[in-house]
Amino acid sequence: MHLGAFLYYVGHHLAAWRHPGAKSNGIMDLKFYKELAQTAERGKFDMIFLADNVVVPNDTAVSYTASVKPEPITLLSALSAVTEYIGLAATVTTTYTEPYHIARMFASLDHLSGGRAAWNVVTSAYSTEAYNFSKEKHPDHGLRYQRAKEYIDVVKSLWDSWEDDALVIDKESGIFADSSKIHAIDYEGEFFSVRGPLNVSRTPQGRPVIIQAGSSGAGKELAAQTAEVIFTAQQTREEAEAFYSSVKKQLIQYGRSADEVKIMPGVFPIIGSTLKEAKEKEAYLQELVHPMAGVGLLSDLMDHDLSVYPLDGPLPEFAETNGGKSRFDLLVNLAKKENLTIRELSLRIAGARGHRTLVGTPEMIADQLEEWFVNGAADGFNIMPPYLPGGLDEFVNTVIPVLQQRGLFRTEYAGRMLRDHLGLAKPQNKFSKSAVL
Amino acid sequence: MHLGAFLYYVGHHLAAWRHPGAKSNGIMDLKFYKELAQTAERGKFDMIFLADNVVVPNDTAVSYTASVKPEPITLLSALSAVTEYIGLAATVTTTYTEPYHIARMFASLDHLSGGRAAWNVVTSAYSTEAYNFSKEKHPDHGLRYQRAKEYIDVVKSLWDSWEDDALVIDKESGIFADSSKIHAIDYEGEFFSVRGPLNVSRTPQGRPVIIQAGSSGAGKELAAQTAEVIFTAQQTREEAEAFYSSVKKQLIQYGRSADEVKIMPGVFPIIGSTLKEAKEKEAYLQELVHPMAGVGLLSDLMDHDLSVYPLDGPLPEFAETNGGKSRFDLLVNLAKKENLTIRELSLRIAGARGHRTLVGTPEMIADQLEEWFVNGAADGFNIMPPYLPGGLDEFVNTVIPVLQQRGLFRTEYAGRMLRDHLGLAKPQNKFSKSAVL
Repeated sequence: MHLGAFLYYVGHHLAAWRHPGAKSNGIMDLKFYKELAQTAERGKFDMIFLADNVVVPNDTAVSYTASVKPEPITLLSALSAVTEYIGLAATVTTTYTEPYHIARMFASLDHLSGGRAAWNVVTSAYSTEAYNFSKEKHPDHGLRYQRAKEYIDVVKSLWDSWEDDALVIDKESGIFADSSKIHAIDYEGEFFSVRGPLNVSRTPQGRPVIIQAGSSGAGKELAAQTAEVIFTAQQTREEAEAFYSSVKKQLIQYGRSADEVKIMPGVFPIIGSTLKEAKEKEAYLQELVHPMAGVGLLSDLMDHDLSVYPLDGPLPEFAETNGGKSRFDLLVNLAKKENLTIRELSLRIAGARGHRTLVGTPEMIADQLEEWFVNGAADGFNIMPPYLPGGLDEFVNTVIPVLQQRGLFRTEYAGRMLRDHLGLAKPQNKFSKSAVL
Repeated sequence: MHLGAFLYYVGHHLAAWRHPGAKSNGIMDLKFYKELAQTAERGKFDMIFLADNVVVPNDTAVSYTASVKPEPITLLSALSAVTEYIGLAATVTTTYTEPYHIARMFASLDHLSGGRAAWNVVTSAYSTEAYNFSKEKHPDHGLRYQRAKEYIDVVKSLWDSWEDDALVIDKESGIFADSSKIHAIDYEGEFFSVRGPLNVSRTPQGRPVIIQAGSSGAGKELAAQTAEVIFTAQQTREEAEAFYSSVKKQLIQYGRSADEVKIMPGVFPIIGSTLKEAKEKEAYLQELVHPMAGVGLLSDLMDHDLSVYPLDGPLPEFAETNGGKSRFDLLVNLAKKENLTIRELSLRIAGARGHRTLVGTPEMIADQLEEWFVNGAADGFNIMPPYLPGGLDEFVNTVIPVLQQRGLFRTEYAGRMLRDHLGLAKPQNKFSKSAVL
């Protein structure tokens, strides 16, 4: 079983920052993140994972929820110096960045960390990001995914632009590198033209691991072509199994084998020594949600200002906007199915934000993870602690030992690189003469 | 006196990587840089400084000189976790990046390092960088500086977009931040339109320190308006004094005081226990230069392929291209004045690359630094070790103690932030009600 520690602000729950177990003053402090990364490494997690966006979503989020955090590549680079094994996964959008920079930064992180970097590719769910990048309008969903496809091609080519043995570094002869093993990529596409080569040599992992999280049609298609890990939101085992088998089938269409991609649904665990205690913990967190924070979150996720409607009225009908697609559909369906008010819907997603919530004892939570894992619903899970560092400490101290006792999870790292942890092979270099063309 | 440790590949000398004192296999390895940063911190340097470009300049550089290195922000973020006092200065171009990203990364680095970040603003000297960013042509020198001016305005506004006390984090009331102290910047310029606010709160230093290195007319003008540190290449004390007093005068025109900017010329030191030993060290380094490496460097610096001309012939006349302006003029003048061949010119710049070379005993080098410092030619120096780590070790072990004995350089850090080391005040926030408007 593979496990990611999804570190989000000072915890995933919307009111996490108000919880006594959250070090909310640490949100911009390296010490806080160092403790989290070292705890996750003590728990033998495959990786820590940071979400991202490049905008302050709205005034409500600013006022009532944690709304600042360090930029992920900067933070993971710092953490690479104080950890040894754990994978370091950062989210970066393809919509408002340049592939040369992103290829270079992740390649640098892979070198500095000794082979532990991963890139979670997103296309930006918030349409307001456009206004921070001299754009009048957020590109349409389909266009964003077309651009992302090209972008990933460019980045992978740049990562291959130095062959493994291109660096010679022979002090005697004065030959630093073998220029026959360094390649311009001469990429000419619809969105990008990039000459290369990259000014970073091939990395310890060959290439950083590529992660994707989009679960829309276009997102799944792109993931089947290019991802090595898929983060996904699944509520029931049936849905999760259907998603799992459909992606694994799609892989084969693209000439890839089923185990080249690890599927890891998000899980939001609330752990108690008894079920009753766990439920009380959940209720306590829900009570901490400021109503304006709830509406703010819902407005963000649906890319629509809901603060103008009555809190205790139904979710109004409005057209889907140009943001994240799969999350939008999930919320509309949930509200309809259970006839929820805006307040109720916002409280329902205040914790897991559309991911699966598990409330119970360590054994009960381990049971659920095991059930999905052995039944082909997941290759592992992206664990979303409700508050930090408390929620991560609890998971590492109580759930991980149960998974280890059952033989489901490692007790020691078998290798040093993230690909080792995930069981992913080092990719062949497309420019190498020995590559199968 | 202020000192920067300018870390460049495995040393500034073109043949550094061939020197026995250079750990050339460490060029992509965090351990190598960690040792350098900790040595510089032991020597009480104000900061370490990383140059940058976003291209592999040419095939010759690839084959015969160190031609890969980690991306600077990634590297400095990693080093922030294993150092405590030393400033962390990275070069980033304004020509091929977005101000929101760069504001955010440096703000994150400033938070994570506890107030030690600095940004060296450049406009890209290599015209071939354009081809890595889907551009057909490198913008003209003047246009690049116009863009840089706007870019810095945007970045500074984003850094101010959260006032110092905007974060409330009151768990009891549920108020995370005071939205009246968080500001959209609504920037509309010729090159950029950026809404803001930044999604990072105001940083420990208020803003990261801004450094500039351009010494052309446009470069000096921009520096006088916006820089807090100026790196410059000066060969003689007379030139240095003229540059120093002209910049300090320009500052006053822009309503700034003379001590708001620290001027730090580059110095390339070759240290021996006797003058004879130092000269032998220099000769040894020069002998290590592969002729093709020399021509490659010269071609890069002049943005013109010189490998097609006879090595032992004169520097041909050709038009100045669209790259770095001040360096081009310096090289043409040097070749003309001393009637140098291409080989001779390339050997002349193989070490200091246009900066001042000091060859001698620790006392002789300290004498030179003192002379410039006390005579108003410099506020400090950017030290360019010939090879790394050896050249930095030597400087810290032998020259720094002499400067300290003379009372010219600190023996302990007086504060924790880079602004403390440099004697620069925390900038006032332009959005703050108490700001003088």
